Amino acid sequence: MKIVLLGSGNVATHLGTALKAAGHDIAQVYSKTEANARMLAKQLGCVFTTELTELVTDSDLYILSVSDDSVPRIARHFIGSNQILVHTSGTIELNTPGVSGVFYPIQTFSRQKTISFAKIPIAVEATSDPLAEVLLELGNSISSQVLQLNSNQRKAIHVAAVYACNFSNHLYTIAESILRDNGLDFDLLKPLIAETAGKINTYSPRSVQTGPAVRNDQVTIAKHLQFLENEPMLRDLYERLSQSIINFNQK
Amino acid sequence: MKIVLLGSGNVATHLGTALKAAGHDIAQVYSKTEANARMLAKQLGCVFTTELTELVTDSDLYILSVSDDSVPRIARHFIGSNQILVHTSGTIELNTPGVSGVFYPIQTFSRQKTISFAKIPIAVEATSDPLAEVLLELGNSISSQVLQLNSNQRKAIHVAAVYACNFSNHLYTIAESILRDNGLDFDLLKPLIAETAGKINTYSPRSVQTGPAVRNDQVTIAKHLQFLENEPMLRDLYERLSQSIINFNQK
Repeated sequence: MKIVLLGSGNVATHLGTALKAAGHDIAQVYSKTEANARMLAKQLGCVFTTELTELVTDSDLYILSVSDDSVPRIARHFIGSNQILVHTSGTIELNTPGVSGVFYPIQTFSRQKTISFAKIPIAVEATSDPLAEVLLELGNSISSQVLQLNSNQRKAIHVAAVYACNFSNHLYTIAESILRDNGLDFDLLKPLIAETAGKINTYSPRSVQTGPAVRNDQVTIAKHLQFLENEPMLRDLYERLSQSIINFNQK
Repeated sequence: MKIVLLGSGNVATHLGTALKAAGHDIAQVYSKTEANARMLAKQLGCVFTTELTELVTDSDLYILSVSDDSVPRIARHFIGSNQILVHTSGTIELNTPGVSGVFYPIQTFSRQKTISFAKIPIAVEATSDPLAEVLLELGNSISSQVLQLNSNQRKAIHVAAVYACNFSNHLYTIAESILRDNGLDFDLLKPLIAETAGKINTYSPRSVQTGPAVRNDQVTIAKHLQFLENEPMLRDLYERLSQSIINFNQK
């Protein structure tokens, strides 16, 4: 497919690289920041522009990978055109004016780290069945796990990802802070964190829940709350997460 | 060292196996459940007993790896003896009657899964300096990361582990439940979870926090809370964890 890439951040870079490697023709890169546009265009071996009015008009697909805030403004440019614009966001509505579909890779990307797209699930959503077919095919050209969703399911994935990833990472931050306050290195917990996250590849997380809450071990819970007596916010999270574990366990 | 192992659960099994492999003499296994005692003793090539009164008396060290509940009862047997008993719990007090020290591997163990002790941090604590030396040496014979702690630090590790592991696993459970309620497979999030947990080997978790809360993106947060409108407990956790991320970010 002939594709124009709008955006030059982590998702645009990784996605553009994977699409090019799969044999697609990246025709042009757009970014309002010239240095970024030039760098990514060079990497992908194509031309670039910093003006929406200078986009090539004959591309099969326009993929918009920018911050959620910027999507509506750029999408507006496509209202009433024949060009097909899809965004890559987990959050932005399908019915955003100018948007025809969603091509959402369910992964977090870092600039530095190369990542294989083959194992990244891609969720597609489209305003028409033919476009859904095109997006599924495009997805299958770079990933082994592509599925069509409705908007509610995409939102469910995004909310679930907030718990499993954003909030988990915050719990790591809390753990690091507790250790540091006691003169200990966060490295001490890394094998345990790796084992915990690794287990879910084999077991349902519910079936391998460990710790004082799932045992309803109120003695240990009380000791831990006592330990956190000067940290009201952490105490509060400890109590509520423990209660949630107890509730889930009783379901 | 000549060692008696009290307990036949996951920690006892993995620890006994690692100690034997490091050349220590496992002299005897104790478990009140005969089948378990026999099985572990067979695995370690030693004798077993189901009676505390039948423990061999000339061992250099007695390692107690049983559930926290059972520690005080078994430790009581060692009050007033010359035998040195250490437990392997992250939680039980050093000053438990009968206990001389702590030998705490900072990892979670599953029966089925073999695990290399070499990379498991071991925290030791002792009622005397000579015993601390012995335990450090024992730790160094099976692990590359052994450190001496005080009781407060051991508690800090345990509390931090509850956040980073027990609570993270519960967040995976919540994510799985949200996906299932929307007809989606938990597999969709596994690459994202692996990436999130893997990142902390390279970066401080605080520095790689992503998601709506750290951006203080109240529009997305409001949409997610709306999505969870029929799940008051999940809503509550979402709000409090988001607020905690915002607070940490402002520190």
